[in-house]
Amino acid sequence: MPFDPHEKPVAALLAPDILDLLEENPSAVAAETEELHPADLADVAELIPREQVAAFLSALPAERAAATLAYLAEDLRTDFLEGLPTSQAAAMVSQMTPDDRADALEDIDEQVAEDIVSELPAEARAETERLLQYESDTAGGLMTTEFVSVAQDMNVDEALNAVRALARAGRREATYAIYATDKEGRLAGVLSLRELLAAAPGATIADVARTEVASVVPSADRQEVARMTADYDLIAVPVVSESGHLMGVVTVDDVIDVIQQEQTEDVQKMGGMEALDEPYTSISFWGMIRKRGVWLCLLFVGELFTASAMQGFEEELRRALVLSLFVPLIVSSGGNSGSQATSMIIRAMALGELKLGDWWRVALREVPTGLTLGAILGILGFARVVLWQELGIWDYGPHFQLIALTVGLSVVGVVALGSMVGSMLPFALRRFGLDPASASAPFVATIVDVTGLVIYFLVALLLLRGSLL
Amino acid sequence: MPFDPHEKPVAALLAPDILDLLEENPSAVAAETEELHPADLADVAELIPREQVAAFLSALPAERAAATLAYLAEDLRTDFLEGLPTSQAAAMVSQMTPDDRADALEDIDEQVAEDIVSELPAEARAETERLLQYESDTAGGLMTTEFVSVAQDMNVDEALNAVRALARAGRREATYAIYATDKEGRLAGVLSLRELLAAAPGATIADVARTEVASVVPSADRQEVARMTADYDLIAVPVVSESGHLMGVVTVDDVIDVIQQEQTEDVQKMGGMEALDEPYTSISFWGMIRKRGVWLCLLFVGELFTASAMQGFEEELRRALVLSLFVPLIVSSGGNSGSQATSMIIRAMALGELKLGDWWRVALREVPTGLTLGAILGILGFARVVLWQELGIWDYGPHFQLIALTVGLSVVGVVALGSMVGSMLPFALRRFGLDPASASAPFVATIVDVTGLVIYFLVALLLLRGSLL
Repeated sequence: MPFDPHEKPVAALLAPDILDLLEENPSAVAAETEELHPADLADVAELIPREQVAAFLSALPAERAAATLAYLAEDLRTDFLEGLPTSQAAAMVSQMTPDDRADALEDIDEQVAEDIVSELPAEARAETERLLQYESDTAGGLMTTEFVSVAQDMNVDEALNAVRALARAGRREATYAIYATDKEGRLAGVLSLRELLAAAPGATIADVARTEVASVVPSADRQEVARMTADYDLIAVPVVSESGHLMGVVTVDDVIDVIQQEQTEDVQKMGGMEALDEPYTSISFWGMIRKRGVWLCLLFVGELFTASAMQGFEEELRRALVLSLFVPLIVSSGGNSGSQATSMIIRAMALGELKLGDWWRVALREVPTGLTLGAILGILGFARVVLWQELGIWDYGPHFQLIALTVGLSVVGVVALGSMVGSMLPFALRRFGLDPASASAPFVATIVDVTGLVIYFLVALLLLRGSLL
Repeated sequence: MPFDPHEKPVAALLAPDILDLLEENPSAVAAETEELHPADLADVAELIPREQVAAFLSALPAERAAATLAYLAEDLRTDFLEGLPTSQAAAMVSQMTPDDRADALEDIDEQVAEDIVSELPAEARAETERLLQYESDTAGGLMTTEFVSVAQDMNVDEALNAVRALARAGRREATYAIYATDKEGRLAGVLSLRELLAAAPGATIADVARTEVASVVPSADRQEVARMTADYDLIAVPVVSESGHLMGVVTVDDVIDVIQQEQTEDVQKMGGMEALDEPYTSISFWGMIRKRGVWLCLLFVGELFTASAMQGFEEELRRALVLSLFVPLIVSSGGNSGSQATSMIIRAMALGELKLGDWWRVALREVPTGLTLGAILGILGFARVVLWQELGIWDYGPHFQLIALTVGLSVVGVVALGSMVGSMLPFALRRFGLDPASASAPFVATIVDVTGLVIYFLVALLLLRGSLL
């Protein structure tokens, strides 16, 4: 029984009240919502009419509004920030954590973003400009620059005081891990706040920190950061420069967002389309047509070859029209078995269970699997023809047993072919630097449909020559 | 350019050395691997021959071996624990965190697990038995009982000392959040270790803790825990009893595992098969046949109706054999557009962007989208027939324009039908308490293939009556 997710009851219950308040007494909105998590405030903003969002966010205290922005849908956030006077927008984003601020500014009009950045306080401006350099799908694009580092020759009490001072100064993020640096300022170790608390007071940080630190360079792909976090059960991944200096930290909440976004992209590609890059509920009509239409046209052009294949066997069809009856059955069997194989392999690759060099191991496995599955379905197909004939439901003519055999054997071949194409296509795509998730069920089906028809008619020629053909 | 994940270079480099050491000098294994993360040790164990795994784990210090077990593939872990003498197995699992221990015991033979539990120290035994009560896909099954709670009337310094004492006593998990309890021991608030450090020394915990705590009951579905973690950027979700008492905590590393497992299940179901429930690389041959074969047979039986549909129009096929040439093209167009729609909708549901009541909004959107996409492909289909005729590649006869029109209009109808079926099937499944992810591309294609054929022949009857039919 599946879990019914995300009914957002808090926001749904509150939204009407807040709309009333915005009309009658906007100054009461802040007090009315002060117990709400910023994520819930963002849900409220997404539920109320679009033209009320700015009024709602403006009715919140600046810090709360900034926290809400971090959870808000991209398009609403962009609209809101672009609509504010530059100085107000700068004041608003300066309240955000550095990584959220950079993300928000990345989405809005470049000129507007530059104007806003130019009005930020000097330190925040430098930080933001540094973060904006990185591509958003890299470790640098994900990291925050608010982390805690201490010199490794500090003793534990000094370090604890330093951390406490930072915490009192209002540093919000990434204090779970404390990074130790050597004399040159390079990352030399890591310890958790808990480990710092547990350490003997006289010890130095170097004594208690672990020196094996999993880290990434700023240009690392966001999927590498996600894999590292998942593999090592991390709550933060340090980002270090080529020279070994700590530049920032990617926190686990951003990693979860990455995992979900990557998964959304994979599922959409596996459905045979381009990744939408925005929620189904907010993409425009023509945006949707473009994301789906391009692949649909490519697949259609591929499927046009089925018409050519059929034309190639028109003479056989003319002599044995009965063959045409099973065409959809045969081609779809191959598509289905290919869909299974490609989905499994794409996912196993995404999880790192399979890498490029494993293709032959998979091939060795899919051949017997495909043949076995094909045999099971082939028997069903054979039985269907014989049964309909014997029960008198349909008359396939005097050679019905040969027709049944043709259908059965073709299904074996086409299902085995489907497994093979479905399992090898993701490897082939990766081999050429493409995304294996593009090996969608429709893509596999298109390849298998054309070749499956050829198999079917060749089997028919072999078995029916001299009788029907 | 996709990221090539998970090459596991550390483990791959080390495995041969460790095999040599195990043969020549097993006592050196511990020192040789002491810098490795337990996740890497688990990778090594998965790379070496199966019969060497027990020797490898036994060569590690007990605490390291226990940590490695938490990352090890289920089947290897189960083999290892079942192969150990009971007292050694008990000593080993007693070193694990309570949640990992319960997970490990859940997988092994029930009688063996009971024997091991009976030899655990009293406190660990009670804890383990409590955790083993919960289903593994619930919050109770995910939670650890190692968390830190303090009375809310404690002052900040007392609380800090209490946390420090716990940390020094070796509590390993879930110290990132500190939970405040009221006089009756019920969960009353939460604060982070950082916030505790930052708090003014004279304050009480009640002064500084946040009182709005997102929590779940032990029977909550693991997907609810995952959604809450993702929505609120949590690193731990408290699990409370009906009476409000804190029973345990689900940590973010386990939530990431849940998210990845759920995604794997969804992808496999969307490929038209049962979820494997174990890695592609480790499932048995017949296990694989079963997981794929059942759905494949069901889909095949569904596809048999295409043969019946074709039989129903055999007279038309006989009169206009040319119609059969486009059968694969037409049915596959519907399948492709259905595959896109169903993938998008399943994913939007999993992310909570769409809920059950949104079905009509989706329907209102998919009708124009499907018709537009269908029109684009229909024009391509029309053009293909006319072009081949005009270029002299194939002779469709004197009525080729009517045939082109039949193909074009059928594609419009079938593509629109595919979008509609693909987008509504996930809603229908959820409505009946089934998993929307079972609305796989092959499932949708099967429905659309049969109805698509009917559309095609009805359009043909309408347009070709009096000429070809």
